[in-house]
Amino acid sequence: MPTAYITAPPDAAGDIARTLVDERLAACVNRFECDSVYRWEGDVHEEAEVILLAKTTDERYPELTERVESLHPYDVPCIERFEEADLLDRFGDWRAGAVGSDEPV
Amino acid sequence: MPTAYITAPPDAAGDIARTLVDERLAACVNRFECDSVYRWEGDVHEEAEVILLAKTTDERYPELTERVESLHPYDVPCIERFEEADLLDRFGDWRAGAVGSDEPV
Amino acid sequence: MPTAYITAPPDAAGDIARTLVDERLAACVNRFECDSVYRWEGDVHEEAEVILLAKTTDERYPELTERVESLHPYDVPCIERFEEADLLDRFGDWRAGAVGSDEPV
Repeated sequence: MPTAYITAPPDAAGDIARTLVDERLAACVNRFECDSVYRWEGDVHEEAEVILLAKTTDERYPELTERVESLHPYDVPCIERFEEADLLDRFGDWRAGAVGSDEPV
Repeated sequence: MPTAYITAPPDAAGDIARTLVDERLAACVNRFECDSVYRWEGDVHEEAEVILLAKTTDERYPELTERVESLHPYDVPCIERFEEADLLDRFGDWRAGAVGSDEPV
Repeated sequence: MPTAYITAPPDAAGDIARTLVDERLAACVNRFECDSVYRWEGDVHEEAEVILLAKTTDERYPELTERVESLHPYDVPCIERFEEADLLDRFGDWRAGAVGSDEPV
């Protein structure tokens, strides 16, 4: 199952996390602050950002990235997919249920 | 070699980390706080948690996950496996030694 | 594209991050503090460290690891490679440009 690695400015990160879970595009999102150094238009910048790790399914991943793009204030947001090689079975079942159905899970 | 991605409540995370290293199920565990948004029984919750990244070997991974399940206060803990595509050779050697033998490494 | 996972002592982490971006070995580096538990020479230690996640390309990855080794105060630094299964196209383009050329990007 995929984990989406997303970075966002601190004032946008909480909304992105909650929206993904509210709209059942992710079963959970873990987020934490970081310092980012990056090159943009020839110069090196340093900025406070937030890393979001969104736990989702193969099926929901494309919608999740589209939604992040629509919510994100940057033109070129960092959205990366990391594939889990394995996970605890019942955690995977919960994840699939949490994004796959309108029934309570 | 595998990295286990585990989330735990703040009051359990330190014990899990130390136990995994004490019992040679991981060579090291890096941990840090996060905010988690997740769906549970139909509702969206937000909670402070800790992310643990446990560095281990193929051989030890199954025992590590069993031990985390036995220590973890949740019924459905997040335990995921991410496979490293490569790593510094001598760091891999240290890791194998740190979990593979009762000799000091 | 690869993400390098590196840990470093707090007083060395900022320099490593900035050097990698200054020298175009990474397009960006996200870093944050962690607590590390590890086994070294038979004993279990606990220490504050910093995790660096350096976003680079296949081509630059070998130079990046050599540079981290040269800058890092540890004999056995944690340098691991995680492969992204996918990423936003224009984020990948930016990343390639940021490390691949002397032209402003």
